[in-house]
Amino acid sequence: METQRIRVYQDLMGANDEWAQKTRTLLREKNLVLLNIIGSAGCGKTTLLEKTVQSLKDKVRFAVLEGDIETTRDAERLAPLGIPVSQLLTSGACHLEAKLVHYALSDLPLDKLDVVLVENVGNLVCPAEFDIGEDAKVAFLSVTEGEDKPLKYPLLFREAKALVLSKIDLLPYLPFSLQACLEYVHQVNANLPIFQVSSLHNTGLKEWFDWICLLRE
Amino acid sequence: METQRIRVYQDLMGANDEWAQKTRTLLREKNLVLLNIIGSAGCGKTTLLEKTVQSLKDKVRFAVLEGDIETTRDAERLAPLGIPVSQLLTSGACHLEAKLVHYALSDLPLDKLDVVLVENVGNLVCPAEFDIGEDAKVAFLSVTEGEDKPLKYPLLFREAKALVLSKIDLLPYLPFSLQACLEYVHQVNANLPIFQVSSLHNTGLKEWFDWICLLRE
Repeated sequence: METQRIRVYQDLMGANDEWAQKTRTLLREKNLVLLNIIGSAGCGKTTLLEKTVQSLKDKVRFAVLEGDIETTRDAERLAPLGIPVSQLLTSGACHLEAKLVHYALSDLPLDKLDVVLVENVGNLVCPAEFDIGEDAKVAFLSVTEGEDKPLKYPLLFREAKALVLSKIDLLPYLPFSLQACLEYVHQVNANLPIFQVSSLHNTGLKEWFDWICLLRE
Repeated sequence: METQRIRVYQDLMGANDEWAQKTRTLLREKNLVLLNIIGSAGCGKTTLLEKTVQSLKDKVRFAVLEGDIETTRDAERLAPLGIPVSQLLTSGACHLEAKLVHYALSDLPLDKLDVVLVENVGNLVCPAEFDIGEDAKVAFLSVTEGEDKPLKYPLLFREAKALVLSKIDLLPYLPFSLQACLEYVHQVNANLPIFQVSSLHNTGLKEWFDWICLLRE
């Protein structure tokens, strides 16, 4: 019983990794960058993606794939920006898998794009475990979540190529030690670039935008 | 291949439900109440549990089981309160399963307890899918997470017997519609009791404490 359970799990992950590899091949063929955006529900992922597309869409040709368990609310928020947006519904699963991303990616006008932003299901944990063929995972952490999260959920912070520390306008009202948070992040991932951002107050966005623009080089 | 995959999943869930049933039997034998506390990482679960135990421990004999992926930080926060506290580490899994809860519960001094508070792994999604033998799931939603979460992650809100809407002291600084949030919650679960709470400012705690005290009756 135990042996069978492990074998099936490996089959599933093996299939996921094969789809992720197909996506990588497709991205290289089309000279595209794909970011896997991961963070808790309500940490500000969609809002920063809206701001990013609004500000950079004359320089960078974006598409967005919105991962959710139910509803098309997030895709509806981004569609008015005039870029290709698709909603990926996971039917209950708490993370995106590579096959669904690959299908949705293949339907995009890839020759007319530079960067594909994939917003994963709102969850700090499971999405970090599934390769979707991305060039980089971007971790999001809202300061409202507490400074200890990099220690409690280290996988995402270890795997990420950038961290967006969001909602920093709320720092005056929170028992949150920014210094401790930065130390914890660097304990887990010593060289992780950290963007301290408030989308609501337009704080710290330029550094994040510059990082996005540099991805294409 | 497809058939085999489904069979194994059912076996796993079947085993989980058997352990949950053993826990229910044990709880009835010992006249105990067990709450399964579920919400995103950093939504204020541990802080409200600290306040709850501090305020009620002369009336209610509590124990706490702290579910986390890594670290014993949350158990260390609660241990100074002088009640039985155990840390349940899931080794990577994003939710508690019934077997681990049953083992930890069995090691508690059950004849000297009234209420066992189980804080699940910080995650709005997967923990709602796993029965751990609880009398009630309690959903936590921080107002920093946005008012649309009951629609986007309905399972937890549908299954819960109470909702703690936390961090309401931050409402003046957030683009959060309380009215819309309450409407969305009631679309999913018409009669769900909602406690609007700020642990930091000691707001709304009395109604929550009263609900906890009523559980024993």
